[in-house]
Amino acid sequence: MNGEFEYIDWVRSQTAGVERLSIPIGDDAACWDFTEPARCLVATDMLMEGAHFTFPPATPKLAGRKALAVNLSDIAAMAGRPLAAFVSVAFPKNRDAGFAEEVHTGLRELAEEYNVAIAGGDTNAWDGPLIVSVTILGEATSRGPVTRAGAKPGDWIFVTGELGGSLKSRHLTFPPRVEEALKLHAAVPLHAMIDLSDGISSDLRHILRESRVGAVIEAARIPIGDAARESGDGAAPLHHALCDGEDFELLFTVSPQDGEKLLSNPPLEVPLSHIGTITAEQQCEIIDAAGNRSELPAGGWQHAW
Amino acid sequence: MNGEFEYIDWVRSQTAGVERLSIPIGDDAACWDFTEPARCLVATDMLMEGAHFTFPPATPKLAGRKALAVNLSDIAAMAGRPLAAFVSVAFPKNRDAGFAEEVHTGLRELAEEYNVAIAGGDTNAWDGPLIVSVTILGEATSRGPVTRAGAKPGDWIFVTGELGGSLKSRHLTFPPRVEEALKLHAAVPLHAMIDLSDGISSDLRHILRESRVGAVIEAARIPIGDAARESGDGAAPLHHALCDGEDFELLFTVSPQDGEKLLSNPPLEVPLSHIGTITAEQQCEIIDAAGNRSELPAGGWQHAW
Repeated sequence: MNGEFEYIDWVRSQTAGVERLSIPIGDDAACWDFTEPARCLVATDMLMEGAHFTFPPATPKLAGRKALAVNLSDIAAMAGRPLAAFVSVAFPKNRDAGFAEEVHTGLRELAEEYNVAIAGGDTNAWDGPLIVSVTILGEATSRGPVTRAGAKPGDWIFVTGELGGSLKSRHLTFPPRVEEALKLHAAVPLHAMIDLSDGISSDLRHILRESRVGAVIEAARIPIGDAARESGDGAAPLHHALCDGEDFELLFTVSPQDGEKLLSNPPLEVPLSHIGTITAEQQCEIIDAAGNRSELPAGGWQHAW
Repeated sequence: MNGEFEYIDWVRSQTAGVERLSIPIGDDAACWDFTEPARCLVATDMLMEGAHFTFPPATPKLAGRKALAVNLSDIAAMAGRPLAAFVSVAFPKNRDAGFAEEVHTGLRELAEEYNVAIAGGDTNAWDGPLIVSVTILGEATSRGPVTRAGAKPGDWIFVTGELGGSLKSRHLTFPPRVEEALKLHAAVPLHAMIDLSDGISSDLRHILRESRVGAVIEAARIPIGDAARESGDGAAPLHHALCDGEDFELLFTVSPQDGEKLLSNPPLEVPLSHIGTITAEQQCEIIDAAGNRSELPAGGWQHAW
């Protein structure tokens, strides 16, 4: 047995028996049994050392955690239930076996927290930096998946949590909003949803584009996080909240009636902010504190607010 | 729109409407509809420039092709039907847009040939070499998936095609044995199967280990390919056929009765070779041309045959 097989055995031993995983790690493919008709969601994200994290401040464990977390966030953005993760890794040859175990421990601990099976993968070693590519299988609830394409003129736009400054640290430890998305979609039919990986200024545009609508958001309603105020780089906290990215909060739209319902009877512990409205006119505008309307520039936008 | 979105638009435009792909490329996750209960097979393989291919002799197109082909081969090894592929890529920043298109064209042409949808993915650019990580979704037929764990003492061991010397060129262009596996499993119940990625000397051991059995193979029955004879490195052709790897032919076991059936009425155009027998005793032995039995060493084995 060489190192690869020992590592795979270790990974396999870490993965408890999962009922629907009828063929677990260790064969040419895994087998997940859908015992009823299912709408199977699949998301995939690849993280590269140097691009999506660096050591330090990341640790091998946090790198593994993040690789799974961004994928869980994608399933959350569809209001789906994550089921099983498949993990392909390229380990740097100059690291020891403990490094590989730590990466996997970061993955496994988050997988356990979210009740997701690590069901398969591919393990490589090479002369390059750490690469972790995760593909996650999920399933839609009976309300169906929530795409980016369902926003309607008049819809209220909401975001969960607080935004900005994530790259200072939270991007490695953020909690994917899986339960939040399921609770929201159970409470009211969500029309469109996305997770905020690039910031509102970019991600809202994906919804507008796919739904062929526009939006007006209000600067004063954006939930600016403490980290956005503490950047010390001279950019306005609002700019950080709109453009930093890696918040992995949810942005979604609902009918005004359902919006009222969510505000009067919030289904989540996480704060919910009503930040604006979907419009028929295909623009993306922001109203500043003084009431002035202007085009919200896409990512990279810099303004003196 | 920046380069990433244009590339994604291009990929999306290349993927024709697929009925069961109810949410295609362009959302947080794709959605594949299983309209009946299904045994969903999932395989994943990550290829790295410098480790799994180099330019030249590989071209960007062949690199993309191979990344999908090795995954198709994994689904073949389960006797499954491939459905949809998810492709995460890290493109080297110093390559032009044509490079990305060529990688994708290599993927797409093979996907079309095998009737597989390219259903989602993740696109990155970085300062490192090309990385292509593919995850493939398949489904088992009504005969069920064929694992590595079902070999029984007395089973006959078969391989498809000819072996050895693949790394000289065929590893970039091999045809994944998807139809062959389906035809074989429809003709007779396959007990255990694996695709030959590391060579018989390694891959047969996976079947023995998972099935808790042993094997005796006969040197004279190994189908040695022309490429194995033309290596010019001094190693015996048989050594190449047993140890080179990257042949991506199928190795499988069936009952002796079904083995007779396959030989008397071959269901494939590809040659089928009966190379040995599964034994209860947990050893892995080879009988040479002179009738001498010895342990078949795992990969890296060198012998003067």
